[in-house]
Amino acid sequence: RGRIQIFQYQVLKWLMALLVGSFVGLVGFFNNIAVENIAGYKLLLTSNLMRQNRNLEAFLLYMACNAVLAGSAAAVCAYLAPAAAGSGIPEVKAYLNGVDAHSILAPSTLFVKIIGSILGVSAGFMLGKEGPMVHTGACIAAMLGQGGSRRYGLTWNWIRYFKNDLDRRDLITCGAAAGVTAAFRAPVGGVLFALEEATTWWRSALLWRTFSTTAVSAIVLRSLIEYCRSGNCGLFGKGGLIMFDVSSRVTTYTATDIAAVILLGILGGLLGALFNHFVDRILRRYGVINEKGAPYKILMTVFISLVTSCCSFGLSSLSPCVPCPPELAPGKCPTIGRNGNYKKFWCPAGHYNALASLFFNTNDDAIRNLFSGGTDSEFGVYTLLTFFIGVYTLGLITYGVAVPSGLFIPVILSGASFGRLVGKVFGSGLDTGLFAIVGAASFLGGTMRMTVSVCVILLELTNDLLLLPLIMLVLLVSKTVADCFNKGVYEQIVRMKGLPFLEVHADACMRSLVASDVLSGPVITFSSVERVGSVVNTLRRTGHNGFPVIEEEPFAPAPELCGLVLRSHLIVLLNGRTFTRAPVKTGAAEVFRKLNPFDFAKVGSSGKAMEVDELRLTEEEMDMYVDLHPITNRSPYTVVENMSLAKAAVLFRDLGLRHMCVVPRTPGRPPVLGILTRHDFMPEYIRGLFENVLRE
Amino acid sequence: RGRIQIFQYQVLKWLMALLVGSFVGLVGFFNNIAVENIAGYKLLLTSNLMRQNRNLEAFLLYMACNAVLAGSAAAVCAYLAPAAAGSGIPEVKAYLNGVDAHSILAPSTLFVKIIGSILGVSAGFMLGKEGPMVHTGACIAAMLGQGGSRRYGLTWNWIRYFKNDLDRRDLITCGAAAGVTAAFRAPVGGVLFALEEATTWWRSALLWRTFSTTAVSAIVLRSLIEYCRSGNCGLFGKGGLIMFDVSSRVTTYTATDIAAVILLGILGGLLGALFNHFVDRILRRYGVINEKGAPYKILMTVFISLVTSCCSFGLSSLSPCVPCPPELAPGKCPTIGRNGNYKKFWCPAGHYNALASLFFNTNDDAIRNLFSGGTDSEFGVYTLLTFFIGVYTLGLITYGVAVPSGLFIPVILSGASFGRLVGKVFGSGLDTGLFAIVGAASFLGGTMRMTVSVCVILLELTNDLLLLPLIMLVLLVSKTVADCFNKGVYEQIVRMKGLPFLEVHADACMRSLVASDVLSGPVITFSSVERVGSVVNTLRRTGHNGFPVIEEEPFAPAPELCGLVLRSHLIVLLNGRTFTRAPVKTGAAEVFRKLNPFDFAKVGSSGKAMEVDELRLTEEEMDMYVDLHPITNRSPYTVVENMSLAKAAVLFRDLGLRHMCVVPRTPGRPPVLGILTRHDFMPEYIRGLFENVLRE
Repeated sequence: RGRIQIFQYQVLKWLMALLVGSFVGLVGFFNNIAVENIAGYKLLLTSNLMRQNRNLEAFLLYMACNAVLAGSAAAVCAYLAPAAAGSGIPEVKAYLNGVDAHSILAPSTLFVKIIGSILGVSAGFMLGKEGPMVHTGACIAAMLGQGGSRRYGLTWNWIRYFKNDLDRRDLITCGAAAGVTAAFRAPVGGVLFALEEATTWWRSALLWRTFSTTAVSAIVLRSLIEYCRSGNCGLFGKGGLIMFDVSSRVTTYTATDIAAVILLGILGGLLGALFNHFVDRILRRYGVINEKGAPYKILMTVFISLVTSCCSFGLSSLSPCVPCPPELAPGKCPTIGRNGNYKKFWCPAGHYNALASLFFNTNDDAIRNLFSGGTDSEFGVYTLLTFFIGVYTLGLITYGVAVPSGLFIPVILSGASFGRLVGKVFGSGLDTGLFAIVGAASFLGGTMRMTVSVCVILLELTNDLLLLPLIMLVLLVSKTVADCFNKGVYEQIVRMKGLPFLEVHADACMRSLVASDVLSGPVITFSSVERVGSVVNTLRRTGHNGFPVIEEEPFAPAPELCGLVLRSHLIVLLNGRTFTRAPVKTGAAEVFRKLNPFDFAKVGSSGKAMEVDELRLTEEEMDMYVDLHPITNRSPYTVVENMSLAKAAVLFRDLGLRHMCVVPRTPGRPPVLGILTRHDFMPEYIRGLFENVLRE
Repeated sequence: RGRIQIFQYQVLKWLMALLVGSFVGLVGFFNNIAVENIAGYKLLLTSNLMRQNRNLEAFLLYMACNAVLAGSAAAVCAYLAPAAAGSGIPEVKAYLNGVDAHSILAPSTLFVKIIGSILGVSAGFMLGKEGPMVHTGACIAAMLGQGGSRRYGLTWNWIRYFKNDLDRRDLITCGAAAGVTAAFRAPVGGVLFALEEATTWWRSALLWRTFSTTAVSAIVLRSLIEYCRSGNCGLFGKGGLIMFDVSSRVTTYTATDIAAVILLGILGGLLGALFNHFVDRILRRYGVINEKGAPYKILMTVFISLVTSCCSFGLSSLSPCVPCPPELAPGKCPTIGRNGNYKKFWCPAGHYNALASLFFNTNDDAIRNLFSGGTDSEFGVYTLLTFFIGVYTLGLITYGVAVPSGLFIPVILSGASFGRLVGKVFGSGLDTGLFAIVGAASFLGGTMRMTVSVCVILLELTNDLLLLPLIMLVLLVSKTVADCFNKGVYEQIVRMKGLPFLEVHADACMRSLVASDVLSGPVITFSSVERVGSVVNTLRRTGHNGFPVIEEEPFAPAPELCGLVLRSHLIVLLNGRTFTRAPVKTGAAEVFRKLNPFDFAKVGSSGKAMEVDELRLTEEEMDMYVDLHPITNRSPYTVVENMSLAKAAVLFRDLGLRHMCVVPRTPGRPPVLGILTRHDFMPEYIRGLFENVLRE
């Protein structure tokens, strides 16, 4: 590459990162404003009916609104892009591990993810918009990285530099980090999330670029919110993005507090592991229903919505009205509609309904109310207990319905209520709002097993660095406890979906095997100058993506490994029709006179590569020869046949390979014995091959 | 390994991490308390003399104190552990890249680093204790990881699990992170520093362990400081660890402020790059003097100390006395001795000396004064300009003297004064203390090129997350500007010291070469069952650390590569004396009846492996045979001779190899052509080999 091309590439790389940052920031803002307005309007209507004492009507209206919103979310999702259901974090994680699963990052997924998430959150489901936001960020990055969707003719010439796995993956990492930033307004937390949870390969250079992306996201978001503060955004009030200012509440803590925090860590770990266990069970159960088709998905979503509405409205109505604490300013208690802590619900003047302050609200506001300081007496033990059980159960049954649904919010809500509960019972000197934060941390540690990123996100949310030791301690305890039982929830989902995810540690079964043990069937190779017909037939016959190329007579005295060709490159080369009548080397110059190097670039997640059947070759052409040298990768990574499979797996994963050639150890045999791909390293596959041996 | 051993290993791993955390926290505290007391006592004595108007005596006393402290620091360093001089961060960085440089992490280095750093900082040098603290943390981790120093008989049986590169490196990463935490009280910043600057190989599991280590460090430090607040620690007052509370100063900023911040970023980048350029020049110049021997080192250190004293005292005395601002409380201005912002120096009552408030102080307090808010009028433009020039120059000439010296403090000080200066000149609506923070960030970005970690450290220092966008912006700008000129200061020093550091990107010269191009000389191999005498002679003759083992007749029909043996393993095996009269396979059982697998473990940085000359073998034994199979690594990573050197370099670096076998492509040649080691991938070496070719 020349100087100008390097410059173009650098400019593009940075421009892309910044564009991704601003787009994700914009979308995050749009999400929030939409949710705040839709949900706010819904709550306003219901509250107005209640103020006129038309309580039953209010309940029915509330239920109907939720059901309609839920139904439309499910419909959009089921008919347009089924891949948009769920959190999306496991899929992004798998993509960054090298799994090219179908349509994970397609533009239709992006669209449905945004719309579905807004409708789903507005429907009052016990789910969050944080996970979907991460997926949205990744989708935006993927779309920008391929220069818009080619289908709609939106491409740009410079973008060709991005048509490769590495740059695409980097950009999507940035997008995922920006998603977290847009969801939590936590730029440093976003970077750490990408590092800790999302990526498989991390490069130092990426830290810097990811950081810039999240910075842009945070700044865009911040300025837009600043603009909305002046009341230009409808019902968008103080709310939307969680941002708690609990500064200057903590100063010192005693041994009892530490004990309470450790206890909270242990319980959070246990309940988090239990949550993961049930999520797994319930997802499998739901999977059966969802497979029956789109109408079933919609019906189930509406059903869960009705249950949720009954729970939140019903439990609130069963809860007694409490007189307002007298020390509060008159406007503060009770409050109606959006914002505010002490909800009136249908209580008489001067009274508030504690459970409604949590349930009859958007989830973000419920979290804010739980985290708020100086409200020790607002929520009683029974209120908190009811809320905790409700949220924990609703969170479990909601995840898995066919709408974009994040796990952060249900986990934070149940953690926060549980933490406040523990704080109340212990009667420690610390503020119970603080216990709510620590409780949220313990549940997050218990389910997601992220530590540093959760800690930093919570710090950025609460803006209080003095909390750090407590949050760290509780995360340490809860993660350790939960790790004794099962894996993190995202890893579990990745595994349940059957995505071929390469784990960090090679499975134990690989240690006693060597590379040649898992090779299956005879290897399909090409000669370095091959007959066109044989290439075409081989490509039609097999679905393999990589083929070893063998240098044979007359180009070499004995057969030797020349390199590796990719299926997609072969098709492009054949389409170029640089054929010869006799088997001779044509050389690269001849090929690249007809084809541009960028014609060989990998197509994006929504693009479609040419298929072998689309080649229209005449009989005569099929009998001619094609020189594969120009498109052969001359330096494929190889392992000797008796290399330990575990060490081969390390090589495969750490270098992010897709194909690895196995070469013989002794002379006098074919120069390549086979090709190892990702599937050959899946423990399930290996265990299947050696079922009898390994059982012994 | 059995279940019990895995359990032991896990427990040990965590215990070690937590122990490292607490020890580093303790040492950090001890460092601070010592510096605060020594420097505080020195300043107190001088101030007392000045209060009696004996100004010349005060000056001489000040100068003498500094010179004595500096001289002893240099003496300790020059005579006991020359490796302790300088920052230590480049050395730690190189170690974690796989460079086993001599005595970098030895116990003597640790001791000198602590003592030397305390003396050096107390001597009023323009240097910090932060870099040395990182090195100290790494040394502590290294010492604990090898179970104390074997020389002093302090070992523990479980420690054997740690006698390998991977676990040792992980622990040292934790130590370095804890060092940053202890220096700045920034646990998250510590983790990010380790990730961004220190390590070459990063694993997700490490994030979690590093985080726990830094958490423990932070908690230990915090509780000890809490204890000292009650006045039990001599002159240790509010001070010691920088921790600024500038909360609630920023709310919004205008376009002018943003422009000022961008300007500050550009200037910071330029001045930072200039700083790096001069550091490199000056270090080379000093290197010549330092090579002349210990007395020269001490003399030069004392000389620089005298210059520093003259500067700080002299410039302060030339600065005029300013009347105290009337709105201050009476006790606040002027102040004498430690702490406080408005230093009296030798001014009349009701007046203060602005330059002395910065110069005549510990560096930590100077930073605190610069960062403090609501003091816009305290420092005039000329004061700041003088201080900036003084600090910038002193910082340059001080780094490189033979005492442990960190670069953070001089860079932060010059950045902060420069930032305040820009803030003053611009006359923006923001507090100038805030500009000082932004300025410090811009200089840190310009010299060290760390971004995320600097940002997080500054956030943790200032406890104000609202500053985030400004700091991010300034770091982005300053790093980008500075990257146009040269590399980060630590990378520069690594390169200058000639440490064989593997860069992330393979050098351009490697792209046109293949693996066999850089092989030098015939490869030295062993038979799989080799004559003892030939092994001993080969080991005596060469200094190589890895040898390919060839399976030959009668064990294989044709010669083939069996694996790789390490020098240290060969010596241990020979020392076990499992010899046979005829060349037969003895098998692993026979060998491990005499030797424990842990005998083959790698010795630590201070330990000493057995040398080949220490083997006392009889003539008869020399004629016997030894079976190398049990100690041969049967799965060495190999590359084919025509593999691109750049791709081989990626494999070598990403997998953290020390030896890589080059195998032939065609049959009928020796089964291994040579071994590639770290030195074969150094661009300087390759350029030397192909000087003529590459120049064309």
